[in-house]
Amino acid sequence: MNIREIVGKIRSSKEDGIKEVFLVACGGSLVDMYASQYFLQSEARELRALSYTSNEFVHAIPKSLGKSSVVIVCSHGGNTPETVEAAKVASEKGAATITLTHNKDADLIKYADYNILYEWGNDTSVEDNPMAIILNIAVEILNQTEVYEGYNKFMEGLKIVNDVVKRGQGLVAERAKKYAEKYKDEPITYVLGSGASYGHAYGFSICSLMEMQWMNASAVHSGEYFHGPFEVTDKETLYLLLMNEGRTRELDERALKFLNKYGAKVEVVDCKELGISVIDSSVVEFFNPIVFYSILCVYRGELAKLRNHDLDTRRYMGKVEY
Amino acid sequence: MNIREIVGKIRSSKEDGIKEVFLVACGGSLVDMYASQYFLQSEARELRALSYTSNEFVHAIPKSLGKSSVVIVCSHGGNTPETVEAAKVASEKGAATITLTHNKDADLIKYADYNILYEWGNDTSVEDNPMAIILNIAVEILNQTEVYEGYNKFMEGLKIVNDVVKRGQGLVAERAKKYAEKYKDEPITYVLGSGASYGHAYGFSICSLMEMQWMNASAVHSGEYFHGPFEVTDKETLYLLLMNEGRTRELDERALKFLNKYGAKVEVVDCKELGISVIDSSVVEFFNPIVFYSILCVYRGELAKLRNHDLDTRRYMGKVEY
Repeated sequence: MNIREIVGKIRSSKEDGIKEVFLVACGGSLVDMYASQYFLQSEARELRALSYTSNEFVHAIPKSLGKSSVVIVCSHGGNTPETVEAAKVASEKGAATITLTHNKDADLIKYADYNILYEWGNDTSVEDNPMAIILNIAVEILNQTEVYEGYNKFMEGLKIVNDVVKRGQGLVAERAKKYAEKYKDEPITYVLGSGASYGHAYGFSICSLMEMQWMNASAVHSGEYFHGPFEVTDKETLYLLLMNEGRTRELDERALKFLNKYGAKVEVVDCKELGISVIDSSVVEFFNPIVFYSILCVYRGELAKLRNHDLDTRRYMGKVEY
Repeated sequence: MNIREIVGKIRSSKEDGIKEVFLVACGGSLVDMYASQYFLQSEARELRALSYTSNEFVHAIPKSLGKSSVVIVCSHGGNTPETVEAAKVASEKGAATITLTHNKDADLIKYADYNILYEWGNDTSVEDNPMAIILNIAVEILNQTEVYEGYNKFMEGLKIVNDVVKRGQGLVAERAKKYAEKYKDEPITYVLGSGASYGHAYGFSICSLMEMQWMNASAVHSGEYFHGPFEVTDKETLYLLLMNEGRTRELDERALKFLNKYGAKVEVVDCKELGISVIDSSVVEFFNPIVFYSILCVYRGELAKLRNHDLDTRRYMGKVEY
């Protein structure tokens, strides 16, 4: 069953229609949902969209969770206890659950009305990875409940975003090496982003830098930067700026202008320069984080090499009790 | 006009009722809104609640903004250009605007259907400060649109939270001094929190540490900590854990247990230990950030003293163009 059919089935099963979409996961999987949250909160006229880290969802169940809800739950390994519990809670409250996992034997699937087993790895096409799949579900839900004007343009974008990614990865290959050479020992990295990509500024911080490289990091929204965070800016502090294409680009440009004047260690990853504008301007902003994820994988790969710190090395996760 | 009357007037002026509440501000003022966002997203059955940093709201106007919306906009000085613009945009779209500022001559007031001129300073009572006022507005809106079961208990809590704050400030006076002595030169501070208080984990990071002390900081949700961020934990890295009373306390306790085992520099500020439980258990969780704000002011005050870095010292804000 494809995404359109899954959403159609859910919609027709709900007497009062779909009123709210909950996006629930932890860590990297929650990061993958941010683009969908931003999309729905921006484009929906009636539909509610909320995201939760799984354990907060489980402990402080929102009162709106119920029969009119769709809950999208994602866990790569599919057995994160609080995420499995979140799907269970959602199911018990009468919500429709769509789960995503890379593990066909995942506990998570027990509580799935519909499960999507997604592909993973460098050889897969990004539209088959969870960030794009969840965004596709969000677009489908909005279009089937309210009609989304950008629907066709979005679907066209989904077909070509992998080409943008592949070309972009080639373009940054050398830059990423230089970045790693220059910045592999930085005491902290500030990662800036806006719009749909703020989630990936957070994601690169917590997953790629903190989790996979044990490097200190902090995500800052490009719009918030000027309201406190910019006071730490100096010639010694590293900034990685994710430049969006789309409506919030001006926010990123403002941060860049300031950083070029008062900072010195400034790395820019610019989706526009990397060629994302082949996607229609009415929907392009929602694709930025999909491109950033894959581009920044090149950067973290170079960091891992030069730091002799394999991306899979952990000291706590899956190794000790917590 | 008091808050109940303001909300009553707005409600009776809207043919289709109030459908969504937007919380829009920058930096510290946006931080003040997080408790309200958390409250509404948790407690509302129908009402939508979304928060935006002002410039993103202005550049990517959400489609749901319109005649059925209430937009709460806050700026301490009242002249932050993107916040003034946000109020203008809201007003032009037909939304009802409630503005909050400490400046009676603020540009922001031009676009206010209702303005609340709030008190500020150490001698004011916390229920008269913006975080509590905005939360009070949120509670009032929910109660007048859907009926909020906790309404009376919330109003009782509002009357006694200042006593909790004053007692708590006394209790931490010595601890805050020791904290500053031990940690005044830390290269990074991770601030952890959950539930309604996650916003203040972020707020203490960006306002008190980054803006006022030029110290590096990063906010981490206690629930997210175990899904990436905890990999940087070691005996050298400083953690400031904001322990909530209420439904998400278990998330904070889990982080504490881990930090006590694998970390060494761990400072706990615990609202329960500071006496917040005099507020009814059904509503206490929403008061945590109000207490944390004032308690952490003691901590930042001690940091400022020992670091010889006045809380008002800026290098960029209000000094250079940006």
